[in-house]
Amino acid sequence: MRVAFAGLGVMGYPMAGYLAKAGHEVTVYNRTTEKAERWAQEFRGALSSTPGKAASDAEIVFACVGNDDDVREVILGDDGILASIPEGGIIVDHTTASAIVAREVAAAAAGKNVGFLDAPLSGGQAGAENGQLTIMVGGDEDTFERARPVMDAYAKAITLIGPVGHGQMAKMVNQICIAGVVQGLAEALNFAKRAELDVPKVIEAISKGAAQSWQMENRWETMAADQFDFGFAVEWMRKDLGIAIEESEKNGANLEMTKLVDGFYAEVQELGGNRWDTSSLIARLEN
Amino acid sequence: MRVAFAGLGVMGYPMAGYLAKAGHEVTVYNRTTEKAERWAQEFRGALSSTPGKAASDAEIVFACVGNDDDVREVILGDDGILASIPEGGIIVDHTTASAIVAREVAAAAAGKNVGFLDAPLSGGQAGAENGQLTIMVGGDEDTFERARPVMDAYAKAITLIGPVGHGQMAKMVNQICIAGVVQGLAEALNFAKRAELDVPKVIEAISKGAAQSWQMENRWETMAADQFDFGFAVEWMRKDLGIAIEESEKNGANLEMTKLVDGFYAEVQELGGNRWDTSSLIARLEN
Repeated sequence: MRVAFAGLGVMGYPMAGYLAKAGHEVTVYNRTTEKAERWAQEFRGALSSTPGKAASDAEIVFACVGNDDDVREVILGDDGILASIPEGGIIVDHTTASAIVAREVAAAAAGKNVGFLDAPLSGGQAGAENGQLTIMVGGDEDTFERARPVMDAYAKAITLIGPVGHGQMAKMVNQICIAGVVQGLAEALNFAKRAELDVPKVIEAISKGAAQSWQMENRWETMAADQFDFGFAVEWMRKDLGIAIEESEKNGANLEMTKLVDGFYAEVQELGGNRWDTSSLIARLEN
Repeated sequence: MRVAFAGLGVMGYPMAGYLAKAGHEVTVYNRTTEKAERWAQEFRGALSSTPGKAASDAEIVFACVGNDDDVREVILGDDGILASIPEGGIIVDHTTASAIVAREVAAAAAGKNVGFLDAPLSGGQAGAENGQLTIMVGGDEDTFERARPVMDAYAKAITLIGPVGHGQMAKMVNQICIAGVVQGLAEALNFAKRAELDVPKVIEAISKGAAQSWQMENRWETMAADQFDFGFAVEWMRKDLGIAIEESEKNGANLEMTKLVDGFYAEVQELGGNRWDTSSLIARLEN
């Protein structure tokens, strides 16, 4: 299938690569051209100088960019995807963005007989590099069923949650859970250290029961060692939590702890942790 | 082996039963005699009218009571275990209590050449009934090795964390983790409901990734349905968090979120949730 991919960041670069390896004809666009050139060379694909040119003969166009404004620019801009994608095509947005921008873009696309899916990712950089991402999708079922086999190239699980915007909302649910889990784990490990406990033994004892979590299994060791130079960056987590908090002001959800943790992440940024992994919440407890 | 068990609550009753089924000669004590009589009949064991009498010819005496004061009374009281247990014996306290009372009791026991282990449990009522508890132990290695084969009767995992008090501290680490996980999950599910998402699909999508937890797997469905009439009660969770918070004032750990969640549990109590499961944190968000 002819596809295009806009946004070759740490996620998009390997994802577009998996599309090429799956046999699709892939044209990429990236704001920094050098990266697109490197990608085109590595995966023997094509590149374009604007998202619109990349999309001009594609059946499905993927975007994976930074935030709401980037989504608007790359999809709705003058040289954007929607200006050029052939009628009947599909735009899949893998960016974690607001449900509002998802609905806005979907409406504009519908006006041109183009399908739209909001399809934020979880699984992080490692998931993208291993082609094992989890994708939460909002959109209609027909569009979903057409795009799903293509996304299979880089996913281990793809779930249609509901109508447009619900992929983004599901991602927010995910991030709210993580905020609570990581802060609890951070306070617990900080407590364990201050009480001079044998941390590996404590984790051994509690890691199979009611306190268990993915974060405990995969992050306790680096957290206990104050290693944060990897993973999903604090600045991206703050962007996501900001979207969730903004949304909660509309739907009336009470995100009291989430707001507290968002403030803690701001403190981590002040410690120099803008690019640290999300698990770095423990850093502010150790000062 | 001749053993005694003081405290036949929802945990102690089945635990003492497993000791009897494992072939030990068990004498039980319970504040409410009727329960001890029922136990003695069900498991063909003996009962005594005071903890001291129950302990008078036992090699190992287990206690599983309510709080620090109960531990002091049942072990250190005039008719308590330590007044009668033969020299060379071991007292194992399965109560979740403070590290302070653990050290206090251990010192008194050492003065009479009696070993002591603080050995709080996790796994809840179901774990006790299935003989599948997790036990976090504080004490010396010799005492631990002598008591371990007996505790095997009702445990799936027994870990010596460190010296006396460290079993209790490990339990606090466990409860701090749970406070964060459950509050995050509560806010996330509340958000999902208010956003009118298909909650089972959201959970399906996020339950294998970085947001995963035992609480998500085992509690999302009852939380989403506002069912809390089971499990580990809010009043016991508040007791445990209170111990953790008190301890943190001594060791300097920062339990900011834990304190917030403790206050949320107090609100749940005001809603009538004193006996509700720990997952009932979501109840206060839905009012």
